Amino acid sequence: MKAKSYASKSANSKLEFYEFDRREPNEYDVEFDVKFCGVCHSDIHTARGEWGEVAYPCIPGHEIVGIVTRVGSNVKTFKPGDRVGVGCMVNSCAECEPCKNNLENYCDNDPTWTYSSVDRIDSTDTKGGYSTAMVAPEKFVMSIPDSLDFAHAAPLLCAGITMYSPLKHWGVKKGMKVGILGLGGLGHMGVKYAKAMGSEVYVITSSPSKEKAALEYGATGIIISTDQAAVESAHKMFDLIIDTIPGKHDLEPYLAMLRVDGTIVQVGPIATEMTFNALLQRRTSIAGSGIGSVAETKEMLQFSADHGILPDIDVIDISKINEAWDSMVAKQMSHRYVIDIENSFK
Amino acid sequence: MKAKSYASKSANSKLEFYEFDRREPNEYDVEFDVKFCGVCHSDIHTARGEWGEVAYPCIPGHEIVGIVTRVGSNVKTFKPGDRVGVGCMVNSCAECEPCKNNLENYCDNDPTWTYSSVDRIDSTDTKGGYSTAMVAPEKFVMSIPDSLDFAHAAPLLCAGITMYSPLKHWGVKKGMKVGILGLGGLGHMGVKYAKAMGSEVYVITSSPSKEKAALEYGATGIIISTDQAAVESAHKMFDLIIDTIPGKHDLEPYLAMLRVDGTIVQVGPIATEMTFNALLQRRTSIAGSGIGSVAETKEMLQFSADHGILPDIDVIDISKINEAWDSMVAKQMSHRYVIDIENSFK
Repeated sequence: MKAKSYASKSANSKLEFYEFDRREPNEYDVEFDVKFCGVCHSDIHTARGEWGEVAYPCIPGHEIVGIVTRVGSNVKTFKPGDRVGVGCMVNSCAECEPCKNNLENYCDNDPTWTYSSVDRIDSTDTKGGYSTAMVAPEKFVMSIPDSLDFAHAAPLLCAGITMYSPLKHWGVKKGMKVGILGLGGLGHMGVKYAKAMGSEVYVITSSPSKEKAALEYGATGIIISTDQAAVESAHKMFDLIIDTIPGKHDLEPYLAMLRVDGTIVQVGPIATEMTFNALLQRRTSIAGSGIGSVAETKEMLQFSADHGILPDIDVIDISKINEAWDSMVAKQMSHRYVIDIENSFK
Repeated sequence: MKAKSYASKSANSKLEFYEFDRREPNEYDVEFDVKFCGVCHSDIHTARGEWGEVAYPCIPGHEIVGIVTRVGSNVKTFKPGDRVGVGCMVNSCAECEPCKNNLENYCDNDPTWTYSSVDRIDSTDTKGGYSTAMVAPEKFVMSIPDSLDFAHAAPLLCAGITMYSPLKHWGVKKGMKVGILGLGGLGHMGVKYAKAMGSEVYVITSSPSKEKAALEYGATGIIISTDQAAVESAHKMFDLIIDTIPGKHDLEPYLAMLRVDGTIVQVGPIATEMTFNALLQRRTSIAGSGIGSVAETKEMLQFSADHGILPDIDVIDISKINEAWDSMVAKQMSHRYVIDIENSFK
């Protein structure tokens, strides 16, 4: 069917209005009208070709919520009118060991990403949520609990799950101390989840101005990463640090903050140069975590509903998307832009 | 009491005969005649000042076995004539959280190392096992099971525990695939333990000539690290890789060999430059592990006795120690030199 969107025509061009054909749902698919779509920093990296070549036009967006319009004949769990969402993946091979272990996000043959990936169904490029309509296999469509505000729910599907998954996997609970490195779109969700899981949370940031927000999100305190005394006082303090800082940075100061058996988890691709001597001294680990599985995403949505956890957002019209991207590149936002898709294309 | 030893007088000098006063045992100490002492590469690094300044003369050696001669009045578990051993540590603070959790090897205030460390008892420099007599607190003295040959048992106290501890901690068992990176003094023990724990073991090495030895130790096969096809065929193969390679090396090829949730464990201090992108893709980890605790060392000795696991050794007279060190620096040995202390000083 015809759909409207904002798309990049090249790595260097701004996003602009673009009409396209969205594939018809097959018997296993769910089709929905997109209501809101969150804006993720990876949208910018991908559309600008910073993470490798992509096909253009590129229609970004992988924090998508909307209302079901049609379902395929074999779809069991959804019907028209249901509140649903799609995150970073719309498919996976379903045959490899990770897929069979319900870890589609680590599919050996790569998940089909929600945009700028080759669709396993029709071999076209996938098209994301900066558009009026979505079609995805039932398995990758999530029910959005009624109590979650729609606009706020959108960023849970990437920013939320990216933080929830490692906190859950590394067993965050009461009695643990968790550091959240960076207080942006990811970091602020991390503070909320880690607090709701019962741990004592500290934000590690170079910005003293973020203290008020950190405390409001539930942190016990902040550690200013440029304050040597503060950094030293945090020596051997944390069971787990989730590192949301994008780009190259030195891990040594944060490794020093880990207790015996502590782990620092990267949730974004980074490059670094370091010695690992510190790892030996306390059996510490550097780990990576990429988004989360379908099952974890469903669990995260229910956890968010149960604990009233939602991101801080700034709802914008899609005509403002280029300015929003520019502001995201210029500074690390502690809230998430969410596009009001329905009203943008009226 | 008077003891004889071989010691380094400076970072640049060869080891030479040196007579010294070993402190008298206090009420909690065990004194023993040293029978054999293993030769560890860290002896060379330490004595040559490569791991930081040390006080001279330096008497190395931390793979020490012998026969008890005297025990303090409060010693409960040993009596003269018992077969005992001492590994890398002779004390720790006993008050920090790691010590209270029986992880003395990760003592927040640093363990007292067996040599070139400040003795917590009398503030002198500790003196290692290239000597005729040892004195150490009961807690850090291990009983050597009767079935373990004395000369062969010595290297278990460093090389053995360094491999046993991470294999045990990361849960090696039947159904897992384990890679042992490097087939030297550490690596060959790793193959034996990982095999005895039920896993399928592969040696990853740059030396095709080591295949025969690897298979004899219990490996299912070897992966030649310079053979691109072999490396690619090992993609996503291992649950755990223990990295025994000393010095700087690129971890990327080995990270690619890890399955989802796989871990590569460093057991020696290394420096590297790398990107961590690979960690995200399969929730993999880079971890460190330093020797093992007292409890783990006791467990390892019993496990070694139960499974008949002993290192390959080359027994030497201490007069040959400088040549032995030179040969260790020149190439990675797949067996361990062990000094026959008793006969050397007759």
